[in-house]
Amino acid sequence: MADISQLALNTATVRMQWNLKQAVEGCLRHGLKGITVWREPIAEVGLAEAAKIVRGSGLDVVGLCRAGLFAADTPQKVLDDNRRAVDEAAAVGARTLCIIGGGLPGGSKDIKAAWGGVRDGLAALLPHARAAGVGLALEPLHPMYAADRACINTLEHATDLCEELGEGIGVAIDVYHVWWDSYLGREIARAGRLKRIVGFHICDWLVPTRDMLLDRGMMGDGVIDIAGIREQVEAAGFHGYHEVEIFSAENWWKRDPDEVVRTCIDRHRRFC
Amino acid sequence: MADISQLALNTATVRMQWNLKQAVEGCLRHGLKGITVWREPIAEVGLAEAAKIVRGSGLDVVGLCRAGLFAADTPQKVLDDNRRAVDEAAAVGARTLCIIGGGLPGGSKDIKAAWGGVRDGLAALLPHARAAGVGLALEPLHPMYAADRACINTLEHATDLCEELGEGIGVAIDVYHVWWDSYLGREIARAGRLKRIVGFHICDWLVPTRDMLLDRGMMGDGVIDIAGIREQVEAAGFHGYHEVEIFSAENWWKRDPDEVVRTCIDRHRRFC
Repeated sequence: MADISQLALNTATVRMQWNLKQAVEGCLRHGLKGITVWREPIAEVGLAEAAKIVRGSGLDVVGLCRAGLFAADTPQKVLDDNRRAVDEAAAVGARTLCIIGGGLPGGSKDIKAAWGGVRDGLAALLPHARAAGVGLALEPLHPMYAADRACINTLEHATDLCEELGEGIGVAIDVYHVWWDSYLGREIARAGRLKRIVGFHICDWLVPTRDMLLDRGMMGDGVIDIAGIREQVEAAGFHGYHEVEIFSAENWWKRDPDEVVRTCIDRHRRFC
Repeated sequence: MADISQLALNTATVRMQWNLKQAVEGCLRHGLKGITVWREPIAEVGLAEAAKIVRGSGLDVVGLCRAGLFAADTPQKVLDDNRRAVDEAAAVGARTLCIIGGGLPGGSKDIKAAWGGVRDGLAALLPHARAAGVGLALEPLHPMYAADRACINTLEHATDLCEELGEGIGVAIDVYHVWWDSYLGREIARAGRLKRIVGFHICDWLVPTRDMLLDRGMMGDGVIDIAGIREQVEAAGFHGYHEVEIFSAENWWKRDPDEVVRTCIDRHRRFC
């Protein structure tokens, strides 16, 4: 059974309701020990103030979301932004920086070039991340995002990329993105053997799913066997936080944020 | 370059505009040699009349769509319906019956049980299909359909299932469902070596995709390198029809069907 000490709040879950300070205070008020922060609420208050808020809280800063978005020929401004994201992660004391692949910009049909662009972009970023002491957490996204958002879509591909790139990068496993994969157990075990699992994200897949981006479910409301995946991840040697990250424009983003966090804690205990 | 002699029309592409007779006549009028028929337009006229229309046309009946929809514990009426689908395929002279997996009915969280249900359902159906001379074409669907429609979502999984089940079943590769898979080339080559490729379906992935089910694109309007996948499929030994199947509630289903078929032929030549 999952324990509240393993639960971390990803600020995206309450992003319409709470700013950075409120999210930190909310975590403390509800007894959470970990937080994962998006860059937008940091930008709202400025990096120095954000670092003070987060570091002063005593919370574990599990991750910073997010960077990546590489392309076949990644523009310099995107590469620069990735370096800034590493610096922000270091400033707020985040253990990892979450990375997603990037899609097929401009109507390109060359997904192989996009895959290569992600590899090259990560290779360019890694020395800076290693020097800053920030681990990169490459998150495979659901295949429905391959075209417009992120072309790394399976744990197998993400792990292979990590192996190609060397030290300082691992995979973040989000149940929403990988739950359907019939080879998930095999790939979790492999990623674990290779010491590549650095993150575990939870939410649920709703039936029906009314929006491809903003209709994620609260744990227990959908079809994902979250506890089963967690057991596999733990058996593979990962014992970090379970980061709850729910994009929910029509439901959870419209609710009282304290109710949202209470529900996360309850559902985490019962379904994760 | 793709040639019109390789193109087959899946009746779903014009399902709002044409009944079975009109679809057959449309294929003949536009010089197509192959057709794939859904069961609904057959049911509209009755099987005997449908068989007369289709068999009398001289068209190659590439496939019948569709059956499957197995579950962890497939109800007898679903198994019976699958047997009827085999009989219908035989009656209209279809070479293959297209099968999709089935999802997670009733809010089940046990996708492993669903996978087993598909295997068991196919094992139960295969003797009847073999006796009828109808090949089963197992089509992996995009992972976004895993919960509510079809839990077989990768070519790797579909091929593994075929290998487990023996003779009389192969895979139908639809570019829409598999284009994002970074291991697609490997899996096409493997399916080819194992003589398991029995179908190839074309359409395109639009950016943005406005509906998860009914917003497929015309070849060339999206991001899929269809010609590249076709080359891999041919290199793997498949030289059957390219079946165009476009679900498009807001665009192609609202157009003049002759224009739709003309566009299919043009785009097939240029992009496939």
